[in-house]
Amino acid sequence: MDEVKLGIIGLGNMGGHYAGRLSKGEIKRLRLAAVCDRDEEKLKAADAGDAKRFTDAEEMLKSGLIDAVVIATPHYDHTVLGIKALELGLHTLVEKPISVHKADCERLIAAHTNKDQIFAAMFNQRTDPRYRKLKELIDSGELGKINRINWIITDWFRTRQYYASGGWRATWGGEGGGVLLNQCPHQIDLWQWLFGMPQKVRAFCQVGRFHDIEVEDDVTAYMEYADGSNGVFITTTGEAPGTNRLEIAAERGRIVIEGDTMKWLRNEVTSTEWCETCETGFAKPETWDISLPASGRGEQHMGILKNFTAAILDKAPLIAPAEEGIHSVELANGMIHSSDIGETVSFPLDGVAYETALKKKIETSTFVKKVDQPKGAASNMSNTF
Amino acid sequence: MDEVKLGIIGLGNMGGHYAGRLSKGEIKRLRLAAVCDRDEEKLKAADAGDAKRFTDAEEMLKSGLIDAVVIATPHYDHTVLGIKALELGLHTLVEKPISVHKADCERLIAAHTNKDQIFAAMFNQRTDPRYRKLKELIDSGELGKINRINWIITDWFRTRQYYASGGWRATWGGEGGGVLLNQCPHQIDLWQWLFGMPQKVRAFCQVGRFHDIEVEDDVTAYMEYADGSNGVFITTTGEAPGTNRLEIAAERGRIVIEGDTMKWLRNEVTSTEWCETCETGFAKPETWDISLPASGRGEQHMGILKNFTAAILDKAPLIAPAEEGIHSVELANGMIHSSDIGETVSFPLDGVAYETALKKKIETSTFVKKVDQPKGAASNMSNTF
Repeated sequence: MDEVKLGIIGLGNMGGHYAGRLSKGEIKRLRLAAVCDRDEEKLKAADAGDAKRFTDAEEMLKSGLIDAVVIATPHYDHTVLGIKALELGLHTLVEKPISVHKADCERLIAAHTNKDQIFAAMFNQRTDPRYRKLKELIDSGELGKINRINWIITDWFRTRQYYASGGWRATWGGEGGGVLLNQCPHQIDLWQWLFGMPQKVRAFCQVGRFHDIEVEDDVTAYMEYADGSNGVFITTTGEAPGTNRLEIAAERGRIVIEGDTMKWLRNEVTSTEWCETCETGFAKPETWDISLPASGRGEQHMGILKNFTAAILDKAPLIAPAEEGIHSVELANGMIHSSDIGETVSFPLDGVAYETALKKKIETSTFVKKVDQPKGAASNMSNTF
Repeated sequence: MDEVKLGIIGLGNMGGHYAGRLSKGEIKRLRLAAVCDRDEEKLKAADAGDAKRFTDAEEMLKSGLIDAVVIATPHYDHTVLGIKALELGLHTLVEKPISVHKADCERLIAAHTNKDQIFAAMFNQRTDPRYRKLKELIDSGELGKINRINWIITDWFRTRQYYASGGWRATWGGEGGGVLLNQCPHQIDLWQWLFGMPQKVRAFCQVGRFHDIEVEDDVTAYMEYADGSNGVFITTTGEAPGTNRLEIAAERGRIVIEGDTMKWLRNEVTSTEWCETCETGFAKPETWDISLPASGRGEQHMGILKNFTAAILDKAPLIAPAEEGIHSVELANGMIHSSDIGETVSFPLDGVAYETALKKKIETSTFVKKVDQPKGAASNMSNTF
């Protein structure tokens, strides 16, 4: 096999974007062979070159035209379609979140029985050089023990019009949550990728704080690790201009990633050793003020698609194996559950209980979503991922 | 009366520092007339000019030599000595925290029956131009509604030697708490001064995380306000180099005070109005990138002492009336209490219940504090406030 024939299901913001770029041959050895959307107009209008067009996903999956599929549908369908694709023997890449809740993640992952099939997730921010550099510093032990993490990721501002642009948006039934399920899966995935899973979480979610929606649009979560370290994760879609600042306080000093900079105040002596051995009460270890060379944002989505191709054709290791996608979902679920019960929640989360609670929210929801007719540019979301 | 004759009780770090500066006439119309310390050697060695020296506080208070007193003793004595001074008709300035717990604050404040007596607290950071500018922007409505506050104040690094330098340090009986009672009263006071009292708090205190002590040296607190806004306050004495970064997200944009900078990303249109009226889903209001002119740290302790003098002689309004000192104590107590019970605590706090719980901690403490003989510079704390 010297090229991958790819199908895309869902020609919304993401799927449509991939189709446009892949149909122009942007990624070598990855040929766009088919696309699928239930919406015939969208399908007809799609920028997808000579890819064969389907309105029925199963038909495309079984067509024999493709070796691999990207699933870029609304969240709940990731599970159903992902299982189908895996069962049909296709290499599969799912958008984030891999599923809406933990039990669905487990079902999806369980369908990946043939490890020769490549199964990946679109955690494109893992290609960002800043986070890759940070992971390298952590994994190599350069930073020493991490004491505290603080991520303020509040630059996900969304207007009333955004939520009014789709009846499924920001509903329990449509997305299974708010900012934690739609906007933040990237950062939550990076969190667990970089720092591992916490032991417990206490979160405070505010529902419809800034928008007329039935799910959370403002979250503060406090997490504790088995080794005593802790972290705070803050997000909202109600803040402009908002902040994206990740701070890590470790024995070897403090790293801050913000805007285009990655700064490390590096302790010459670890804080632990200094604390024990310093003969005065207030002195701090000397620090080096280091700007880490981590400019640009990396290859992002195209990088993940290239890596998916290389994994299929060359057995390259995956940047984001889909199996790892369960962690960000479990963390998001845990935050919502903690806020619901007003208590600290320990991991692992009871996925079945969470699913039951979520279904009850969907069944008992009396929320009436206001949906506008799109006006002009309002429906143009081609630049959002 | 054209000058104030001042006495100082307690010649430790703070009292000794004031004595040195005031005895040289640094503040006009404020004459150092007497000083007091139980430790005769310290008293003898004090840099206090020709001030009369006392080993007994009550004797000094009753001596007739002074009109006003600064109480710079360990925390618990603020209440007892403050009440005595007020009852004797003296103008009184107490170090922070004004007391260790809310019930003691109430007792102390209740003794201030004669409003012609000036009663102030040493919240010197209220003189910092950055915080004064921020207060001005908030109080004038320039910032609009505040949505979120985040203060990471983790640059209070202290070594093992610091805690070993005094048996009373970081004990329930000696200080009534850890970083919240010793290092952070300034920031907690600024918090309530700038943003008002929250409705509730959920805090997570770690006891002796970085040091061998029986009180908290690591805290994360989540606060909620009646209007839905929220905030996170993070502090520790275990982190080097540590952070001091205050971020305020408001309708009119975001202000960050960090290091020597005070930056405002100012929304031309408020986020609330933009959210409602913008016809696209993702656009944000235009922002102005403003560097606020707020350099330097202000007059700090000398500023508060000058203001105390002007209040006595000229009826100038106080920068930090002692009555306001109860709020930071109540907030600190609420954080410790929330962490103790593992639940959210609402304000106002039950001060008597807190006092009872604190006394029980003191009575049942089996912690044996390790105290070192000072070695060389170890005991020199002249630069710490």
